[in-house]
Amino acid sequence: MKKIGIVNGGGDTQAMNAVIASIVRTGVNRDYKFLGFIKGWEGLLDNEYIPLEVKDVRGISHIGGTILQTTNKGRFAAKEGDGQTRKIPQDLINLAKKNAAMLGVEAFIVIGGDGTLSGAQQLVDQGIKLIGVPKTIDNDLSIVDKTFGFSTAVDIVVEALDRIHTTALSHNRVFFVETMGRYAGWIALHAGLAGAANAILIPELQFDYKNLVNFLSWRKRIGKNYSIVVVAEGSRAVNEDFVTNPEFTAAENRLGGISYEIMKRIERMSPGEFEMRNVILGHTQRGGTPNAEDRILAKVYGTSAIDALDAERFGHMVALVDGEMRTVPITDVVSSLKLVTDEDLSLQTARKLGIYFGEEFNS
Amino acid sequence: MKKIGIVNGGGDTQAMNAVIASIVRTGVNRDYKFLGFIKGWEGLLDNEYIPLEVKDVRGISHIGGTILQTTNKGRFAAKEGDGQTRKIPQDLINLAKKNAAMLGVEAFIVIGGDGTLSGAQQLVDQGIKLIGVPKTIDNDLSIVDKTFGFSTAVDIVVEALDRIHTTALSHNRVFFVETMGRYAGWIALHAGLAGAANAILIPELQFDYKNLVNFLSWRKRIGKNYSIVVVAEGSRAVNEDFVTNPEFTAAENRLGGISYEIMKRIERMSPGEFEMRNVILGHTQRGGTPNAEDRILAKVYGTSAIDALDAERFGHMVALVDGEMRTVPITDVVSSLKLVTDEDLSLQTARKLGIYFGEEFNS
Amino acid sequence: MKKIGIVNGGGDTQAMNAVIASIVRTGVNRDYKFLGFIKGWEGLLDNEYIPLEVKDVRGISHIGGTILQTTNKGRFAAKEGDGQTRKIPQDLINLAKKNAAMLGVEAFIVIGGDGTLSGAQQLVDQGIKLIGVPKTIDNDLSIVDKTFGFSTAVDIVVEALDRIHTTALSHNRVFFVETMGRYAGWIALHAGLAGAANAILIPELQFDYKNLVNFLSWRKRIGKNYSIVVVAEGSRAVNEDFVTNPEFTAAENRLGGISYEIMKRIERMSPGEFEMRNVILGHTQRGGTPNAEDRILAKVYGTSAIDALDAERFGHMVALVDGEMRTVPITDVVSSLKLVTDEDLSLQTARKLGIYFGEEFNS
Amino acid sequence: MKKIGIVNGGGDTQAMNAVIASIVRTGVNRDYKFLGFIKGWEGLLDNEYIPLEVKDVRGISHIGGTILQTTNKGRFAAKEGDGQTRKIPQDLINLAKKNAAMLGVEAFIVIGGDGTLSGAQQLVDQGIKLIGVPKTIDNDLSIVDKTFGFSTAVDIVVEALDRIHTTALSHNRVFFVETMGRYAGWIALHAGLAGAANAILIPELQFDYKNLVNFLSWRKRIGKNYSIVVVAEGSRAVNEDFVTNPEFTAAENRLGGISYEIMKRIERMSPGEFEMRNVILGHTQRGGTPNAEDRILAKVYGTSAIDALDAERFGHMVALVDGEMRTVPITDVVSSLKLVTDEDLSLQTARKLGIYFGEEFNS
Repeated sequence: MKKIGIVNGGGDTQAMNAVIASIVRTGVNRDYKFLGFIKGWEGLLDNEYIPLEVKDVRGISHIGGTILQTTNKGRFAAKEGDGQTRKIPQDLINLAKKNAAMLGVEAFIVIGGDGTLSGAQQLVDQGIKLIGVPKTIDNDLSIVDKTFGFSTAVDIVVEALDRIHTTALSHNRVFFVETMGRYAGWIALHAGLAGAANAILIPELQFDYKNLVNFLSWRKRIGKNYSIVVVAEGSRAVNEDFVTNPEFTAAENRLGGISYEIMKRIERMSPGEFEMRNVILGHTQRGGTPNAEDRILAKVYGTSAIDALDAERFGHMVALVDGEMRTVPITDVVSSLKLVTDEDLSLQTARKLGIYFGEEFNS
Repeated sequence: MKKIGIVNGGGDTQAMNAVIASIVRTGVNRDYKFLGFIKGWEGLLDNEYIPLEVKDVRGISHIGGTILQTTNKGRFAAKEGDGQTRKIPQDLINLAKKNAAMLGVEAFIVIGGDGTLSGAQQLVDQGIKLIGVPKTIDNDLSIVDKTFGFSTAVDIVVEALDRIHTTALSHNRVFFVETMGRYAGWIALHAGLAGAANAILIPELQFDYKNLVNFLSWRKRIGKNYSIVVVAEGSRAVNEDFVTNPEFTAAENRLGGISYEIMKRIERMSPGEFEMRNVILGHTQRGGTPNAEDRILAKVYGTSAIDALDAERFGHMVALVDGEMRTVPITDVVSSLKLVTDEDLSLQTARKLGIYFGEEFNS
Repeated sequence: MKKIGIVNGGGDTQAMNAVIASIVRTGVNRDYKFLGFIKGWEGLLDNEYIPLEVKDVRGISHIGGTILQTTNKGRFAAKEGDGQTRKIPQDLINLAKKNAAMLGVEAFIVIGGDGTLSGAQQLVDQGIKLIGVPKTIDNDLSIVDKTFGFSTAVDIVVEALDRIHTTALSHNRVFFVETMGRYAGWIALHAGLAGAANAILIPELQFDYKNLVNFLSWRKRIGKNYSIVVVAEGSRAVNEDFVTNPEFTAAENRLGGISYEIMKRIERMSPGEFEMRNVILGHTQRGGTPNAEDRILAKVYGTSAIDALDAERFGHMVALVDGEMRTVPITDVVSSLKLVTDEDLSLQTARKLGIYFGEEFNS
Repeated sequence: MKKIGIVNGGGDTQAMNAVIASIVRTGVNRDYKFLGFIKGWEGLLDNEYIPLEVKDVRGISHIGGTILQTTNKGRFAAKEGDGQTRKIPQDLINLAKKNAAMLGVEAFIVIGGDGTLSGAQQLVDQGIKLIGVPKTIDNDLSIVDKTFGFSTAVDIVVEALDRIHTTALSHNRVFFVETMGRYAGWIALHAGLAGAANAILIPELQFDYKNLVNFLSWRKRIGKNYSIVVVAEGSRAVNEDFVTNPEFTAAENRLGGISYEIMKRIERMSPGEFEMRNVILGHTQRGGTPNAEDRILAKVYGTSAIDALDAERFGHMVALVDGEMRTVPITDVVSSLKLVTDEDLSLQTARKLGIYFGEEFNS
């Protein structure tokens, strides 16, 4: 009977518990034993963990969050805020190895995104046996078709857009609905397409304030009495940075979100022309009950991680690629992010339907 | 056969269509005919209206918004932003009477809140026959037990709080969830109570930043790894106004919400102590499908308006008072708002459960 | 410090955990200690219980079911299936007293409906100190305005009706949606009103098959291409009993529901005239997340139970009566059920809107 | 400017309006004009249609049903109840051609499932130009990855299962949740997997009553206090047919569903051993708001249909195959259904998690 450590890292998403539960349920049938480390690798470094048997994972698959807690500031986080990779200190790696040996943990299943998996790769390089499970609400891991949590996040944004639509119809307003998506605009794009936004701003397609104002003015001019703009949090205008308040420190200024920034800029460019409101969904996009698709995806990933363990595919990640479960080297996955490109079917569909993406607009 | 004008005013709420539909369905059986005026009294002044038969209101009761559109800036709006009453110009009232006479409209059913009904009262004083139907998402009309839309708004905030709870558990964060409620804190109070907030800030109970920071620090100190604060948009700190950005105009500064203001203040008072995030639900609280209770309430109000019409209770409003439908003079309703007081059962319940309301806190 | 036993009985409803949590949270602040008995009084008789501290009730208020489990077949259940009261054997009462004494439990809070509270009254008569908390998904307890769980159950049925409406529009069909409600039709009435049913059948208003068929035929004749009928499970036709299958035993025959019975009868009376389908929501109406209103109600009841304990109102039940929390003798509550009557505002509203209730119909 | 007829057939699913809207929005930009035929080909045969411009499809994409209505009993339906193909009479085809010519309709977009597309193929063979769009809630069209409506249907079943779980925990019961799926078990399989069913019965895997009873008894024996069984409506036991009631006609007997049948059989085999309840979700699975994924899928299909029109791919169907939009000959699609096989990833995952599928069971 092999003892396996379960480690999750980074921000939580809706179906992490479903992954953990399916790992344990499947693994126990194949004679594995599990320890769950609290707050990811932190739990290994600090010797905080719980044994995980089937009774411990009963009835958790439809509950958001993670019973193991998580952190995106752990000592093994290997990506800085600017996306640069950071080397994990050797003494910490040694400590991890020592603790694992003392606990009799022979291998790990690591559930995480770009940052967590980059760190995991450094452990692999040092001889630690582990299997990766991809996790990102932003769906921006390269190679992987789809990650759990993303579909639920899109559902949540679309529900908000549906609500905004009925109320917007009555008033002459411009609504900005700010979504997650620091580097990749998948949530904004899918939600805006499903929820019938008039414009979608994403990090991959920088916008120009002048064009945006032209677009909004044009809609007013042709008699549309409202506009709904979905904005990914990482969206940026060409050649422009946030307007900072000199009275505030940098930390204070960072508290403002992109939707406020845009509203303030537009108000400054065309004072009084638009009545604007924003909605910031924030962490509601990460929490709550996962939808059916995300639960299935999580269960497919969790059970496949045990298959990969059986096959001793250490240093690999289980990944749904073109609809099939495979294992791919972790290094291949973390080398670049999956961003929205012009070839994407959902972007193309949105464009055919006339959704505006911040491009040149004169009319 | 009497011809009746239907007029709605102010912001929309989720079950306005259900009211309109039940007025028409019930009224047609009693030999009334209906005209629906577009954007409230504006439609009467501008001769924009649609005839409303049963076929026109089929299948709309579960859809948010209003098929008649609405505005809170109409010429008959009788409350300023500061809550002061404004006199409607006599020539406009004369125009309204003339247009009504030309259309053969003998009486009106007016669906609206404090502002719309204050205006309606001035028309009543000038001999226009009308029945009022109370409408406010904030549930702040005096005398009236409950208005439609409020219950759905609370559901929406609670759903967001549920989502925040699962994700908050994993991180050491303070979440501010900003709700509607300019003068009255009912939505924040009910949602915070149902959704298990740790603190609730409402306009009726001014808070002090120092106490709030003490409370949040105390929670950290006793090992709670997160705090969820529900903030009504009209909440204010004692003796403090918004920090304004001198680079911005007044209009630009107004775009910021109270949750940002609070986060910035706290960051300034205790730099780096709290990792804070906010959620602004904004107009999502007004839109979408009404819940069952709001639909029933709307249907009760709509059918009762026809009873009041039959009884010629002009100048009165239909109102659910202590669980019974009555008619009350509109003047009685608009003289003051219903605010949260210490006697309120939900406030008392929240306090018994240890929810913090911004009061003195030393610990 | 007083030790209090928490006992729940009968079928579960959505906000039972919220009641339990608010009892414990409020009570602990007032120096009470709590034991939760598993499966109600069964747990006391069998010495199965868990201590309940604040940490044990954290994060359960929005989860359906009850952490204490429940049964409607316990030894202290005091109502038979036919509604007749049953005397609890003296030796069992003695055993309960003995066990309570051994555990140092001085008083109980009993959460239950008609059956559980009838049993509780017999214990009160024998000197056991207890406070009642009303619980019935059917909302049929007399005196009490509203019980938790009911509002959520109505929401669930309405959501199903909304779904049926969009699909029904396309087909010429009659849909029967069967709801809970063995003796009282509150769920069917409220859901049918909110969800725009064409007809509602409830136990209080017996229907006649001939009239029902006339009504459905009339709708077809006037060009309505579908009918939606909400049927409470306890609805019965005048002078008619279920058609039984002679091949089956009584137990087997009981497995069929009223909606099947109605469809079969109608098919027999007018072969091929109607294409009929049914939906049976069953126990989905009891489970899942409680809505905001039910959570608030549960928290109001739970905290008030502690107030009643402080005031030593033993033998009484906390009850929301005309919008205020009071205590009423348990005997007053269990003497009769609260049924739908012609005076009910929701029934009157439904009738004004033209909803059919099984009455005489010729057209 | 080409005039195109839009035709939908068969049962409705949640995102049909989204398809229609995206066809019109995209097509109008490319200079097409559209007529929508009422109830599919029936509308062409009877000259019932409506012109469809952008204004006619505004705000319908999130609403279930179809603004064009549909029927699964039209004169061009080409599959019998037994799955056998039926030849459409030549005179009807001639009539269709004549009417199309008179209206100036040059080509059709046909949205439908196996039956509708089989009929469409016969029209193609007779020279009618059309593009197919796949539609089946059961997701059983061969070649096609996924059809719109399916994902929402699964969500609906899972929501019911979540509710059942919380209530089931309190009682010793067996719940049967009956889902759609006459020939293919995709909905039952996906929902049962996501919603943590204990057993799933699907048409592809015939079950044996004795094994099923053994499985349920075993769960009781090992202390599981409830079982949840998801049953696709088309599930059948090996060598067994429905128990018919000799008092009823064949039509009457057909009204009973498979879940009743199973409960009755089990009650007969083990009288009193199990307390059983069923839930029949019926047409709720077809209606209401489509989820985000289904809306996106529908918009991808709708816009692609215009691309196929531009490319004159008549006689072909747009199809998502391995994640890419292609066109495939309609004949290829209707030759066989896509059924659940042992190779399916979701079936394999469910089996790894220990879900029972009716197979041999001795324990």
